[in-house]
Amino acid sequence: MEDKLHIVALLGSLRRDSFNRIVLQTATELCPADAYIETVDIGMLPLFNGDFENSMPPEVVNFKTKVASADAILIVTPEYNYSIPGVLKNAIDWCSRPVTENSLDGKPVAIMSASPGMMGGSRAQYHLRQCFVFLNMFPINRPEVIINNVQEKISEGKVNDQPTKDKIVEQLTALITWTRKLKR
Amino acid sequence: MEDKLHIVALLGSLRRDSFNRIVLQTATELCPADAYIETVDIGMLPLFNGDFENSMPPEVVNFKTKVASADAILIVTPEYNYSIPGVLKNAIDWCSRPVTENSLDGKPVAIMSASPGMMGGSRAQYHLRQCFVFLNMFPINRPEVIINNVQEKISEGKVNDQPTKDKIVEQLTALITWTRKLKR
Amino acid sequence: MEDKLHIVALLGSLRRDSFNRIVLQTATELCPADAYIETVDIGMLPLFNGDFENSMPPEVVNFKTKVASADAILIVTPEYNYSIPGVLKNAIDWCSRPVTENSLDGKPVAIMSASPGMMGGSRAQYHLRQCFVFLNMFPINRPEVIINNVQEKISEGKVNDQPTKDKIVEQLTALITWTRKLKR
Amino acid sequence: MEDKLHIVALLGSLRRDSFNRIVLQTATELCPADAYIETVDIGMLPLFNGDFENSMPPEVVNFKTKVASADAILIVTPEYNYSIPGVLKNAIDWCSRPVTENSLDGKPVAIMSASPGMMGGSRAQYHLRQCFVFLNMFPINRPEVIINNVQEKISEGKVNDQPTKDKIVEQLTALITWTRKLKR
Repeated sequence: MEDKLHIVALLGSLRRDSFNRIVLQTATELCPADAYIETVDIGMLPLFNGDFENSMPPEVVNFKTKVASADAILIVTPEYNYSIPGVLKNAIDWCSRPVTENSLDGKPVAIMSASPGMMGGSRAQYHLRQCFVFLNMFPINRPEVIINNVQEKISEGKVNDQPTKDKIVEQLTALITWTRKLKR
Repeated sequence: MEDKLHIVALLGSLRRDSFNRIVLQTATELCPADAYIETVDIGMLPLFNGDFENSMPPEVVNFKTKVASADAILIVTPEYNYSIPGVLKNAIDWCSRPVTENSLDGKPVAIMSASPGMMGGSRAQYHLRQCFVFLNMFPINRPEVIINNVQEKISEGKVNDQPTKDKIVEQLTALITWTRKLKR
Repeated sequence: MEDKLHIVALLGSLRRDSFNRIVLQTATELCPADAYIETVDIGMLPLFNGDFENSMPPEVVNFKTKVASADAILIVTPEYNYSIPGVLKNAIDWCSRPVTENSLDGKPVAIMSASPGMMGGSRAQYHLRQCFVFLNMFPINRPEVIINNVQEKISEGKVNDQPTKDKIVEQLTALITWTRKLKR
Repeated sequence: MEDKLHIVALLGSLRRDSFNRIVLQTATELCPADAYIETVDIGMLPLFNGDFENSMPPEVVNFKTKVASADAILIVTPEYNYSIPGVLKNAIDWCSRPVTENSLDGKPVAIMSASPGMMGGSRAQYHLRQCFVFLNMFPINRPEVIINNVQEKISEGKVNDQPTKDKIVEQLTALITWTRKLKR
C-alpha cells in the first residue's frame, strides 16, 4: 500500500468570503482517498525583504518547512490585475529564497482559479506557470480548472455545480497520478 | 511655461542595498529639469485583503492618494521567480481597488529593471505590462531599461556605467514627452 | 473637417467560414463614419525568410506598403495553441523587417478575437501585445473585444448578438479617438 | 539495453546562415550517444488553413507523421518581435490539428534559442511554453539554453564557446533523462 500523498494548498485570497476559499474547501472535501490537502496560511507572512533571507522570522521558517514537506502543491487563486495576487506572489518569493533552500523545488503542482468574470482567473495561471520554470516545479497540463461566473456555481458556501466539482476531482486525480509518476 | 511633471516612483525591492534602489536614486538625480521623481514607500503596506476595500487603513489611503496625484508612474524593480515581486504586486493590488478608485487609472508609465543576471529583470517587465492593460495605464515602448550584470555597472552606491546612465535619461525623457502628449 | 481614418485590418484565420472573418465583416459594416476598414490579405504571403529581407517578393512589398499607409491597425484573430496563429505572426514578421522599414512602426492598434470556447482567444491577445512593444505599436486598453462561445452569437454569416455588436462599435470608436489623439 | 531515443528537432529560422541553424548543428553533433537528433524541415509547409484539416497536403501529413514518431522534441529558434517566429508557430499549428491527431501530444520537449542581442531569444521561449500547456507537452525546466551575443560564440559555422557547448550538452542530457522518466 502506498502512503497517502500530502498536498499543500496555497490560497491566493485573504478575503473571508473569497470564492477561491470555497473552491479550495470543496477540493479538500472531494480529494481522492489516497491523498489529503492541507491549506497553509499565507496571510501572516511579512512582505518579502531580501535582508532577512538569512535570518528569517519564525513564521516564515515554519511556512517554508511546511511547504517543503509536501508531496505536491495546489494553488487556488483569484486573478488580480490580470496577474498573480501580490499576497500569493509574496508567499512564493519567501519560498524561493535563499536559492539553496527553495521549498518548492521539484514539486508537482496544479492550479485552480475562480472569478465572477468571463476569464476565470486564467491570466494569473499563465504567469504562475512562468514562475514554475524558475522554481523548478512540475505543473500538470490537464485539466485546467478555470472557473468563470463563479458566483453562479456556488451556494451556501459550497461549489454546487456538478461539472465544476467533476473538474476539480479530475484535476486532483491527475495531480496525484503525476506526483506518483515523478516520485518513481 | 509648463509645470514640472510629478513622477511617482514605486521600488519593487525592500532590501536596503538593493541594486534597483541605486538605479532609482540615479534616475532621481538625472531626471530632466521639467519633471521630478518622488519615491513612495510600499514596504509599510499590509498584505492586500479585499475585506478592507471599503475601510482601508490610513497608510493605504495615504499611499493611494499620493499615487493618484502623479502625472506619471515610474516602476523600478527586480524580477523574482521570473515575475513581479510580490511586494510590488501587493502595492499595485491596493492601488487598483475598489475598481472605481483605481489610483493608477490612465497614468503614463515606464519601467526600469536591474539584476545581476543575464536577463536584467525583463520577464517581470512583460508581466507588469499585462497588468497595465487592466489598470488602464499607458506604458512607453522605448527605450526599455533592462540592466543586466548590474553589479558591474555600480560603484559606491551609484550607477557609474555611462551607457546605462544615458539609457535612464533617455527613458525619462521619453516618459515626459509621452505624458505631455497624453495630457493634451 | 478631418479626413476619414484608414484602418488596415489583418485577419488571423484563412478558413473560409472563419468566425473571426465574420467578426471582421461585421466590424467593417459597423465602422463609425469617420473611418473605414480595409482588410489586407495575408494568406498569399510566403513563409518569412530573412535571406529575402533585402529582395522581397512583390506580394510582400505590396503588403508592407498597404500596411504602412494605414492610420491604425485592427487585428481580428483566433487563438491557436494558446498563442498567435502562425499565419498572422508570419505576416507581422514580414512587416517588421528590415528593422528600418517596420511597416507597423508607431501605429495605433486594437485587437478582437473570437472562439467557440470559454476563453475567446484572449491568450493570443496578450502575446500580440508583447509583440507591440518591440514593434513600437500603441494598443488601446479598453474595451477588450474577447468573444467567447462565438457560435452562439452568429447567424447567417453575421454577428447577431447585440452586446457583441455594441462592444465592437465601442472598440472601433476608442481606436479612432486614440488614433486622432496620437496624431496631434 | 535501451534503444536510442529519437529526438525530432524543429528549427525556427529559414535563413541559410541562421545562428540557430548552427546551434542546432552543434547540438546534433554533441548529442549524447543514447539519443540522436533528426531535424525536420518546416520551410516547405503551406500556411495553416483549417479548411484543409481533413484533407491535408502530403507534405503536411509526412511532417506530422515524422513528428509523431519522436520520443522527444527539440525546438531551436530565434525570437521575432518578442515572440515565436511565424514560420515555427505555423508548423506547430499544423501539428496540433485536428485535435484528435495532435502529433505533439504528450511529448517531452526542450528549447534552445540564440540571438545577437542581450536577451538571447528568451521571450519566444516563454510563449512557446504557454503553447505546450494546450499541446500537452512536457518541457524540462533546466537548464534553459538562452544564447545571447551569439555572433561572439560562433566561428566557421560552429559554436566555439565552451560554456555554451557545455550548456547544450547539459540540456540534451536533461531532456534524455526526462524522456526516459516519463516513458516508464
